[in-house]
Amino acid sequence: MAPQHTEFVKRNEHYVSSFGDKGSLAMPPAKKLIVITCMDARLDPAAHLGLKEGDAHVIRNAGGMVKDELRSIVISQRLLGTREIAVFHHTDCGMLTFGPSDLPAIVKAAAPGDAAVAARVDAIDFLPFKDVEESVKVDVAWLKSEPLLLPETVVSGWIYDVKSGRVSQVA
Amino acid sequence: MAPQHTEFVKRNEHYVSSFGDKGSLAMPPAKKLIVITCMDARLDPAAHLGLKEGDAHVIRNAGGMVKDELRSIVISQRLLGTREIAVFHHTDCGMLTFGPSDLPAIVKAAAPGDAAVAARVDAIDFLPFKDVEESVKVDVAWLKSEPLLLPETVVSGWIYDVKSGRVSQVA
Repeated sequence: MAPQHTEFVKRNEHYVSSFGDKGSLAMPPAKKLIVITCMDARLDPAAHLGLKEGDAHVIRNAGGMVKDELRSIVISQRLLGTREIAVFHHTDCGMLTFGPSDLPAIVKAAAPGDAAVAARVDAIDFLPFKDVEESVKVDVAWLKSEPLLLPETVVSGWIYDVKSGRVSQVA
Repeated sequence: MAPQHTEFVKRNEHYVSSFGDKGSLAMPPAKKLIVITCMDARLDPAAHLGLKEGDAHVIRNAGGMVKDELRSIVISQRLLGTREIAVFHHTDCGMLTFGPSDLPAIVKAAAPGDAAVAARVDAIDFLPFKDVEESVKVDVAWLKSEPLLLPETVVSGWIYDVKSGRVSQVA
């Protein structure tokens, strides 16, 4: 497959030509909201939540795990005024497909005898989970007990269904 | 301001009703691509890169810093087949507005005498930067020297201009 980045400038043209007055948007999110969700390719959080440019910080990683993102959350709250966090995990997530030792084993098998690789991969907690609703509740509870979170933060927990596009609240 | 999450179900209705056949998309990204970019509210990476649901993993945090996301990158490459990473930072980024000691000072001033808060915030590297193009190059170089990255990975570095919506390659 040819590299995708060679097409970025061309694919960007339509957006640039219809950019309108978005260049005047302020840096702080208008809705004072952080959405944390998975990197999964099937998710378009702006589209499925009806968010426009300027509305919300969107943080994404494998699974939508809050524990990787304390740096970003503190910056968002303390410098840019957000006061609400919505955590989304989703059905059919890749995080449901492996156990704690699987990724270290895969990485080490691809670089046999490489001690630097082994040490580096063993240092990572890959944060797999077995139940989507439970994982949302765990992440919401983690946020609510986090000393660096502003106490007035409104935290909610959600599941996105990749088969229907529907969101539903679970925490 | 009323909590935003009370409107999520209503805002989601249009997306659900026009969901079409997106429920049959596969989990692995069709373009074998990871886009890493900032959480900034003004950015809609799917829109400004013309990406559809199913195309690419999208990882977002404060600044679009790769160092926070090694867990997600390893999962994306080893379990879901991505082989290209495009790093985007952007103009007028919040990361340009503070120095290394500013956030610890702000957080400690809001919780005077709280040793647990002080220790926790001092443990975070907030990863501020002073020049967007330089920060993209640093992140691209970091990825290229990362032992856990697959050696065949195509890495490129980009700036998104919040005043024009335009993307430009710098690495």
